[in-house]
Amino acid sequence: MSRWEPNARGRLEQAALELYSERGYEQTTVAEIAKRAGLTERTFFRYFPDKREVLFAGAGTLQELFVDTVTEAPDAAAPIDAVAAALDAAAAQFQGRFDRVRRRQAVIAANAELQERELIKFASLSAALSDTLRRRGVGEPAASLTAEAGIAVFKIAFERWVEQSGDQDFAHLIRESLAELKAVATGA
Amino acid sequence: MSRWEPNARGRLEQAALELYSERGYEQTTVAEIAKRAGLTERTFFRYFPDKREVLFAGAGTLQELFVDTVTEAPDAAAPIDAVAAALDAAAAQFQGRFDRVRRRQAVIAANAELQERELIKFASLSAALSDTLRRRGVGEPAASLTAEAGIAVFKIAFERWVEQSGDQDFAHLIRESLAELKAVATGA
Repeated sequence: MSRWEPNARGRLEQAALELYSERGYEQTTVAEIAKRAGLTERTFFRYFPDKREVLFAGAGTLQELFVDTVTEAPDAAAPIDAVAAALDAAAAQFQGRFDRVRRRQAVIAANAELQERELIKFASLSAALSDTLRRRGVGEPAASLTAEAGIAVFKIAFERWVEQSGDQDFAHLIRESLAELKAVATGA
Repeated sequence: MSRWEPNARGRLEQAALELYSERGYEQTTVAEIAKRAGLTERTFFRYFPDKREVLFAGAGTLQELFVDTVTEAPDAAAPIDAVAAALDAAAAQFQGRFDRVRRRQAVIAANAELQERELIKFASLSAALSDTLRRRGVGEPAASLTAEAGIAVFKIAFERWVEQSGDQDFAHLIRESLAELKAVATGA
């Protein structure tokens, strides 16, 4: 039996991100990540299936937050407003994590396989959102379109947030992108 | 030098789709595809890098059609209307190819790697569309949001078209999804 390691998950995530930034993703091994975190490889594999998934460990939490927020929106809320509430909740979760998020995006931007993985995570998020909307009684194609539109707003606001200096907060950029989506959809 | 084979590309595509449907994608080899088409493996590799790309050979043509249609839209056209024209042009291109498209979708739906590839093709399409809109003078985030919204409409109309019996034409489903997007974006 191994002894309990405080915050092993967080230490491994931090160590992986540092090494990916310093040496590149391809050049880093799980052994090096574990060593940097002061843990064993065996501990690494208790938390993550491979070195790629360390970068996407937050996707499950984000999806849960989206699903829960949409589920708990008032019955009378329009689908797009339920999704807007989920985007606001997500923005609050990213609050104060700008440097880490930006560092992670730089690692992903440098690797085609990671970019593809990110796309797939967004597609899962969209599928989970449209399932949740259907459970609220939203029909098709409205549920899928609202989910896709919401994820587009999230992605584009996220890219803008990461690319700028961090002065504008993510919540503000999400609200701006959502307003812009409404404008472009109606041909403004 | 090899002799000229009439419509080699089309014959290879047809043979691949038949074999993927009959035996499954994983179980089919390039040698079998070439044999079924009455051609050599060497000829296959003159047209396609691997057996996966046979299924995505149309993506480049579709992207060109999107880009050209948006580029040629009247200067006064709103971005969403330029994209709507591109979607109409795409629908016209799919006209009369329902059985083949449906067969292809069944092959893709059965394989996670192919589904991921399809996602990536849609993301490229969206990036090409937003580049084209920016060249028309559309700013950000409007260009990216319009492109993402247009691709969402296309994907969802495409899924609905493939899943039904083929009675409703693709152009009609695209127009319906676009109208629905406008309704959901404005909170209807």
